[in-house]
Amino acid sequence: MAGGIGSRFWPMSTVKFPKQFQDILGTGRTMIQQTYDRISQIIPNENIFVITNKEYVELCGQQLPEIPEENIVGEPMMKNTSACNLYMANKIAGINPNAKMVVLPADHLILKEKKFIEKIELAFKLVSENDYLITLGIKPTRPDTGYGYIQYLSNEKDEFFKVKTFTEKPNLEIAKTFIESGDFLWNAGIFVWNAQSILSAFDKYLPEMVQQFNYCEYNSDREIECIDLIYPKVTKISVDNGILEKAKNVYVIPADLGWSDLGTWTSVYQNAEKDDNNNAIASKNILTYNSKGNIVRIKNRNKAAIIDGLKNYIIVDTDKSLLICPRDNDQLIKDYVLDLKNFKKGERFM
Amino acid sequence: MAGGIGSRFWPMSTVKFPKQFQDILGTGRTMIQQTYDRISQIIPNENIFVITNKEYVELCGQQLPEIPEENIVGEPMMKNTSACNLYMANKIAGINPNAKMVVLPADHLILKEKKFIEKIELAFKLVSENDYLITLGIKPTRPDTGYGYIQYLSNEKDEFFKVKTFTEKPNLEIAKTFIESGDFLWNAGIFVWNAQSILSAFDKYLPEMVQQFNYCEYNSDREIECIDLIYPKVTKISVDNGILEKAKNVYVIPADLGWSDLGTWTSVYQNAEKDDNNNAIASKNILTYNSKGNIVRIKNRNKAAIIDGLKNYIIVDTDKSLLICPRDNDQLIKDYVLDLKNFKKGERFM
Repeated sequence: MAGGIGSRFWPMSTVKFPKQFQDILGTGRTMIQQTYDRISQIIPNENIFVITNKEYVELCGQQLPEIPEENIVGEPMMKNTSACNLYMANKIAGINPNAKMVVLPADHLILKEKKFIEKIELAFKLVSENDYLITLGIKPTRPDTGYGYIQYLSNEKDEFFKVKTFTEKPNLEIAKTFIESGDFLWNAGIFVWNAQSILSAFDKYLPEMVQQFNYCEYNSDREIECIDLIYPKVTKISVDNGILEKAKNVYVIPADLGWSDLGTWTSVYQNAEKDDNNNAIASKNILTYNSKGNIVRIKNRNKAAIIDGLKNYIIVDTDKSLLICPRDNDQLIKDYVLDLKNFKKGERFM
Repeated sequence: MAGGIGSRFWPMSTVKFPKQFQDILGTGRTMIQQTYDRISQIIPNENIFVITNKEYVELCGQQLPEIPEENIVGEPMMKNTSACNLYMANKIAGINPNAKMVVLPADHLILKEKKFIEKIELAFKLVSENDYLITLGIKPTRPDTGYGYIQYLSNEKDEFFKVKTFTEKPNLEIAKTFIESGDFLWNAGIFVWNAQSILSAFDKYLPEMVQQFNYCEYNSDREIECIDLIYPKVTKISVDNGILEKAKNVYVIPADLGWSDLGTWTSVYQNAEKDDNNNAIASKNILTYNSKGNIVRIKNRNKAAIIDGLKNYIIVDTDKSLLICPRDNDQLIKDYVLDLKNFKKGERFM
């Protein structure tokens, strides 16, 4: 899944060039390339599909030349994750009705690759024997209010557990009680299931959407035309809300993956390499003086920068825009962009 | 005089494009254009000469298309202000031996244009009747240690006074006593004299330099070739040190001009238009939040910027470089540039 526009990463991430196609950590590979590198260890290229916005299909092909062109699928508009999951389940089941699927967000960080592969292989084993919908759950390290939480039934020690409830973005008080109770995990948005299992769940919980998608003939010449026709009418709902919160066969595999959704500059800062002054600076030609705890991203690698006297700031510079704000204000970036849009010619900055 | 390289204004000012050719205040006219606009009210274009580095002759012609091409004179290297003043006095005396001259730095700010014109006209009147070397003196508003001070003999109230001493860049203690004494003025580096008077003074105080310059035939085809030949041997000395500190016929006209040499970003800040939060921002598309007392210059006028949580900073962005530093550190900018030069490819940033 590579359809987001990453507005919290402005000005690095823009509508034309969103986060998943950026080397946001400064490692030399973009987020979607890192996701490909990780999963291609166990999935052959011809079985790797990307679903993204139509506008990014070309970009995606440039960044992932290993994947067959026809496996990069463009949605005509953003419709949240139920639609794209139903679309891809239909398409993949059309190729192989017994296919097992792993669904991965394109822009997440996973440091423990070996553990990740282990857990995915465990999940594949489980779904090949059972009608399970599986999600990976991350042990929470802080009462983060930006994540979804999964409560599981932990009667005995095991490698996977039945899910009791999903709670999307709780407030801080509730998040704290979740952490204390010990039987909550973060929903990493990484799913494993049989094509048939997820299609059955859609039949049950989003039957109208299934009807709309059944109208199309997948992997045919008319697929794109048909998808363009039905998409405008499709309901915008996440697969968590639309399916997983309702289904009775959802299981979670706790996984210590060194995971971050890199949802904010702060989480990028936390996961980036830092110098002796705790500055996360991915580029040479940047000199800091009396500056600590900053994250600095200069898109033009040949550009010089002098940063003096800043503590805990986000500094991002692109050809079109410059952002300087305290790291604590990283949730305000969407608002800044809105304010810019209210300017006469603001549209072009996002 | 337009030969400086303005390294204190990095990254806006660079060796390739120094301060005098920049619209450093964001008014729509570069500093040298403002200087031209001011003096062209009383001097016809054919009598306006620019002396600058050879490298800037073309740029100068582009910015001042009103001036005859041959009036823009290029020095082969930087030799401080004695050499350029002797050169121009020779050249102008060659055209008109009775010429009166006003010598103006190309990169200073003068807000009170009418007062400026008045004082220059007074000076012209004085030098047409007397063998005087005249400098304009600015009433000091603070014990600035970056300026030269002129002590004058103030026996009676008059429009001009004989100069007693010059003191270049005193320390803070001395600068304070100068201010308290009341008979000191800042040396604005604006001079008025007869070509013959200044040539006589050079004869007396820098006879070796005069010999070198006498070797050339001015306003001839061979002028440039000859200047290129003599310049490497010429002594580097300012006209203040070389002539004015020694001459007995130096007079000062006190002038309240709304003057600044714009020698630092802080002085640019002080002279720039400011918004309700005392931010000096010459460009649209820049939004500030919780930010006060900053000077922001983004060279690309179409670029957006968000600045949150900065107080009293200098923020300058060009295609090649970004500078963020406290306004109080504006004297360190030369050091930053040196540090960058010590980087492998640093040379290209200045």
